[in-house]
Amino acid sequence: MNIIPPSMEQEIAGRISRIARELSSQGIDAMLLSSFVNLYYTSGRVFCGYAYVTASGDATYFIKRPIGLENGNVQYIRKPEQIADAIAAHKPASVALELGSASYNTVSRLQNVFGDAKIADATPIINKLRSVKSEFEIAKLKDCGIRHAAAYGKIKKIFREGMTDIELQIEIEHLLRSEGCLGQFRIAGDTMELFMGNVLCGNNAETASPYDFAMGGGGLDESLPVGCNGSLIKPGNAVMVDMCGNFNGYMTDMTRVFSLGNIGDLAKRAHQLSIDIHHRLAKMAVPGTEAKALYDEAMEMVKNASLDGYFMGLKQKAGFIGHGVGIEVNEQPVIAPRSRDLLQEGNVIALEPKFVIPEVGAVGIENTYVVRPDGFECLTNFQEEIIEL
Amino acid sequence: MNIIPPSMEQEIAGRISRIARELSSQGIDAMLLSSFVNLYYTSGRVFCGYAYVTASGDATYFIKRPIGLENGNVQYIRKPEQIADAIAAHKPASVALELGSASYNTVSRLQNVFGDAKIADATPIINKLRSVKSEFEIAKLKDCGIRHAAAYGKIKKIFREGMTDIELQIEIEHLLRSEGCLGQFRIAGDTMELFMGNVLCGNNAETASPYDFAMGGGGLDESLPVGCNGSLIKPGNAVMVDMCGNFNGYMTDMTRVFSLGNIGDLAKRAHQLSIDIHHRLAKMAVPGTEAKALYDEAMEMVKNASLDGYFMGLKQKAGFIGHGVGIEVNEQPVIAPRSRDLLQEGNVIALEPKFVIPEVGAVGIENTYVVRPDGFECLTNFQEEIIEL
Repeated sequence: MNIIPPSMEQEIAGRISRIARELSSQGIDAMLLSSFVNLYYTSGRVFCGYAYVTASGDATYFIKRPIGLENGNVQYIRKPEQIADAIAAHKPASVALELGSASYNTVSRLQNVFGDAKIADATPIINKLRSVKSEFEIAKLKDCGIRHAAAYGKIKKIFREGMTDIELQIEIEHLLRSEGCLGQFRIAGDTMELFMGNVLCGNNAETASPYDFAMGGGGLDESLPVGCNGSLIKPGNAVMVDMCGNFNGYMTDMTRVFSLGNIGDLAKRAHQLSIDIHHRLAKMAVPGTEAKALYDEAMEMVKNASLDGYFMGLKQKAGFIGHGVGIEVNEQPVIAPRSRDLLQEGNVIALEPKFVIPEVGAVGIENTYVVRPDGFECLTNFQEEIIEL
Repeated sequence: MNIIPPSMEQEIAGRISRIARELSSQGIDAMLLSSFVNLYYTSGRVFCGYAYVTASGDATYFIKRPIGLENGNVQYIRKPEQIADAIAAHKPASVALELGSASYNTVSRLQNVFGDAKIADATPIINKLRSVKSEFEIAKLKDCGIRHAAAYGKIKKIFREGMTDIELQIEIEHLLRSEGCLGQFRIAGDTMELFMGNVLCGNNAETASPYDFAMGGGGLDESLPVGCNGSLIKPGNAVMVDMCGNFNGYMTDMTRVFSLGNIGDLAKRAHQLSIDIHHRLAKMAVPGTEAKALYDEAMEMVKNASLDGYFMGLKQKAGFIGHGVGIEVNEQPVIAPRSRDLLQEGNVIALEPKFVIPEVGAVGIENTYVVRPDGFECLTNFQEEIIEL
């Protein structure tokens, strides 16, 4: 089996040449990637081993597992030290390693492979490149968004009165999996853990979580303090469904709100403001726009409506309203007040201006968008208004 | 809310004092933990921040999120550099950081917090301590095993003829979640990713995976090449169900085999040998036994039965037959040929001698055991023979 899936040869060649160009421009001779996400990005397949990309545009795949992958540029190894022999003839003077994700011990061991080569950080380089999606990737994300939205269209049918939040969540998980969701949701860094997403209802939406998410929830156990806490879904509750869709290795992020009975004017007004923010920001979000400007515009709209007390949480507030999404659920750019990112054509961004309304729950929507020359194109098209259960 | 759940005060005090004793004996002044699993281990709760434990037995929790946790030893911080001020009066000369799990950049930043203190590796110290479970932890694991086994008892009822492997897996996931399984399965290191476990059937069991698991499977997508590949479950197939149970922050690991129609004598013989290995090893596994000796004994039984060609995979074979389990699914000790571990009372071990039989699938069982003075006590009690669908 060729390590690069046949349908992806051109796509992978493009990614490798963009990495090589970036290495050249930064004066770095080579990059060695070891995380599953970046091996997937540079080969089209998750394997255990390393991808070695040089500034001159060569890619070599050093593979530990699985057996049976082939390609002119594949070499099987048992341990990373064998890479030293393989590159002995062209030892790099500088090499970028994944300092932001690989463990200290892993980096130290890889550092030894390269002797006295200068070590650079591959993490920001590859993150920046991955934040601009190719049309191939956008097609995957579109497919994902369509399937994600189709699953959300069936949520109303699976709700039964008397359900708790976790009972509803489990049925939505089952629905998503039955529609082809692969399950695994990859997250970068060490400040988050994610199963399949979260359903929040009533006052549980106020409970602060340890994770760096837009919303919280108390969870069912001290070992996993986020999301559902077993609350009965009661009349007057808003039910926020924020479940990730991973249908093909790429993910869309999407939130919709369901209501049981009358949730009151404050919640309805806040939800409508979230929709308005989406539509306003979608027009602003042309390439070159500061990510920070999107955040500022949203905050101004929220303050003008005097809803800032409820925005992004009550006592503990999230510091961002949007984030890149792709192979991982927290990619670049981040839509936050101190972000220095400028939007680029091909960025894919999940925008999630949300409100927590006491006694009711969380309201507001999240869509995944791609940045096009004229602003956001939505990948998660589905009724944005509150859906009555 | 007290950071330490009231029911866990004594338990946490015991863990802290064991860490302190180990630091003392190694001549290390303090340990700073930052991973969710080790924060959970040292506080009884997942939070975002750091646990600082000194060789004299003091524990301080530096918390970023969530708001509202209280205790005499809690300090809220925005960034790790604030820890430097807090410990200025008692600066350690040496400090252990999680070099095996924290990223290179995280460790470098924490290193700066401690100025010129000597840095030690906290990972092997805490892993070793965590490998010996207290009676409190064993009680959680017992509870987990009972619920895990109860869910497995319902698998036969949810099978319908004409199902594919993934259809069955999705129903088992739903069953486990409905029975209280928390979903998240924590795994240490960077050589594995796990959703809820795997169902393997027919020739898909032969397909090698990139992950360091006992068994493989091709998966449904290049982005997640493990487990189910969408195969129809056909007469003559063995269906191996290896789904994790995480019901309370601690996990049991358990595998059972189901069959459709006649799977043949070779598969039945191999399955019985797996059961026999379990029973033989359960008696051997008294404290002080070499982990390696368990592996060697199993291999000898397999070779005597001339089944080594099928053992732990066909072409790509797993290099271990058992592993510790607890907060994470891959703890110490490891039952492998080059393991230097000696079994200790309170080790909790998932033992999984398995075989891949061409055209049939994978057979063999996995149980989670606790090491007691007289050998293994089983935590996952459920019919071990092949269950006919």
